[in-house]
Amino acid sequence: MIKIGILGGGQLGYMFLQNAMQYPAEIHILDPSEHAPCAKHAHHFVQGDFVDYQTVIDFGKELDAIGIEIEHVNVEALRHLKSLGKRIVPDPEALAIIQDKSVQKKFYIDNEIPTAPYFELEDWKELICVVTEFPLFQKANKGGYDGKGVQFLPSRNEIEKILRVPSIYETPADLDKEIAVVVIADGKGNFVNYPVVELVFNQEYNLLDYLLMPSSLDLIKAKEAEKIALQVVKALNSPGVFAVEMFLNKDGSIWVNETASRVHNSGHSTIEAAYSSQFDQMLRTLMDLPLGSTNLFSTSAMVNLIGAENESGKAQIENLDEILKIPGVYLHWYAKQETRPGRKMGHITLIGNDLEELKSNIEKVNKTVQVTAER
Amino acid sequence: MIKIGILGGGQLGYMFLQNAMQYPAEIHILDPSEHAPCAKHAHHFVQGDFVDYQTVIDFGKELDAIGIEIEHVNVEALRHLKSLGKRIVPDPEALAIIQDKSVQKKFYIDNEIPTAPYFELEDWKELICVVTEFPLFQKANKGGYDGKGVQFLPSRNEIEKILRVPSIYETPADLDKEIAVVVIADGKGNFVNYPVVELVFNQEYNLLDYLLMPSSLDLIKAKEAEKIALQVVKALNSPGVFAVEMFLNKDGSIWVNETASRVHNSGHSTIEAAYSSQFDQMLRTLMDLPLGSTNLFSTSAMVNLIGAENESGKAQIENLDEILKIPGVYLHWYAKQETRPGRKMGHITLIGNDLEELKSNIEKVNKTVQVTAER
Repeated sequence: MIKIGILGGGQLGYMFLQNAMQYPAEIHILDPSEHAPCAKHAHHFVQGDFVDYQTVIDFGKELDAIGIEIEHVNVEALRHLKSLGKRIVPDPEALAIIQDKSVQKKFYIDNEIPTAPYFELEDWKELICVVTEFPLFQKANKGGYDGKGVQFLPSRNEIEKILRVPSIYETPADLDKEIAVVVIADGKGNFVNYPVVELVFNQEYNLLDYLLMPSSLDLIKAKEAEKIALQVVKALNSPGVFAVEMFLNKDGSIWVNETASRVHNSGHSTIEAAYSSQFDQMLRTLMDLPLGSTNLFSTSAMVNLIGAENESGKAQIENLDEILKIPGVYLHWYAKQETRPGRKMGHITLIGNDLEELKSNIEKVNKTVQVTAER
Repeated sequence: MIKIGILGGGQLGYMFLQNAMQYPAEIHILDPSEHAPCAKHAHHFVQGDFVDYQTVIDFGKELDAIGIEIEHVNVEALRHLKSLGKRIVPDPEALAIIQDKSVQKKFYIDNEIPTAPYFELEDWKELICVVTEFPLFQKANKGGYDGKGVQFLPSRNEIEKILRVPSIYETPADLDKEIAVVVIADGKGNFVNYPVVELVFNQEYNLLDYLLMPSSLDLIKAKEAEKIALQVVKALNSPGVFAVEMFLNKDGSIWVNETASRVHNSGHSTIEAAYSSQFDQMLRTLMDLPLGSTNLFSTSAMVNLIGAENESGKAQIENLDEILKIPGVYLHWYAKQETRPGRKMGHITLIGNDLEELKSNIEKVNKTVQVTAER
């Protein structure tokens, strides 16, 4: 039986594990926290730091294939494990491109992939001397994750907000929509992708409301976005699941924002809505099985479950009964013990081909459930 | 967080666990084997005998709800746990009816549920003196499971085949089709059911070929079968998932064969083909959540993966690549270490609304995959 190791045991590893259980595969998980969601459910759980070279080598040396659910892992160790004949997904060279925002940006330019104009500064203090228009988006070259490592700089007057690390500085998009495409490569020249996902924002609060798949884009624009996403993944030259996040500008142009070289939030609704989910595809790329079908059963939406403001402690979900009454509503609770304001605690998927009904159900879900701390 | 205990940690518990992971529930499993499929994946696994009174009490006393994945468990212990205020699904009284074939048969008669004519003998030797027509199906009152405890007696001349235990003896059906309906009760008067499942046999070998949902029955006959199944489950007066297995006779009459008071082989394809699977419904009944939707995405078929003849040892599946190429084909490997001839090692679900294509894919699957022992 194949032995698969995953670096990271958070919610992405958890959903991967859930699907992997139905295959003849032994799953090993490496995560620094003994309370990681995966800790109690993997065949073998190892507590350790996936950024540490020797820890990753020790974890991987007896395994057949190694994957990731977080990008900030030790690439050198993965290179060495690859040289020992292990299957590494994504390829360490693709991961090296993705890990560093500056390298990633050059990769887009080199491959003629449309992306926001930018410049780069090793020393953040130089921004004072650079002749540039504001506003700017600053992206730290390293360590960005889940919104961290990104800073909006509205004007030169607010330059004190700057992150004091080597960064790239991008011209903000003239945004019509944020979109993403999840692409899967088998490493043998075959690629499949799910339809475009659209991030729908609440106009009033300018907060992400839900993700919609397929997006509301017209077919020609959707095909263009898929084509760009495929171009990115082909150029990365690696097996794996990739999420290409893009901006659709008001003038109709598309810019690649960034690419994740792993399963991604934008693909969560594929668990219920697609023939083969992104987590199933991840397993298939690790086991070197044929890619799964990306056909959809239904239109779907995904709502993140975020820890409520002013609530910290043992997590609970309120009013679950109310929403589980609705056909086509699914809970994914990430098995994190503690809630904190803004922490991703789970998500809810909604399916249905009647878009008005779907939107009304999304509203119901957003108004009803809450993640709070037990009293 | 709710603490749920399951008596039994085999494949049914395994598929239950896989779905339960996405809910805020802590799952405890009791099974006599340390190698049970669930052993490495439950929040808490307890090795112990679910037939033993004190073991079940000790297992259940700190839990909120207790369910089963096998019926031959200690009912007295469940009665006691119920008296302590625990939620027991199914209700111990329903389980007591199901556990004993003689009691179950009387229950059908008392509730005017159509079933095969039968008689009962405490002492098997009396069959010699009984005036009866052959052939007969003998069903041992207790301990029957997965085909065990059932004996076909073709004629008085072959009476030496008899099981030497208290049993019921049934007139065989004049069989047109074998069918089943999975019904779920929330214990508060609400019931839902999936469409009728049909067991399709290979004409040449008279072996079960696949299960088909919905069945090929005409709508009126299908509704009649669903009505009978609901009648059975209403009379059992218990929350839970129930599978009512029935014979459709050539004259069009339907007889209830037997009822399982748990998730069942006949419902496996609901994992992929229905909005809410039978395992999700099981969790909902244990958590006292609203029943899930039994709407289907697609027609589906299920093929059992049985250990090949003359193959014993560490299990492996052959030619998996070939079948996972086909869109809408899903593997469920039960994580059993050892294969033996005839042992249920997993199943494959196929979905698709083109019935001819579905049948051709079933044939391909049946011809291609094999469960053998590693060499």
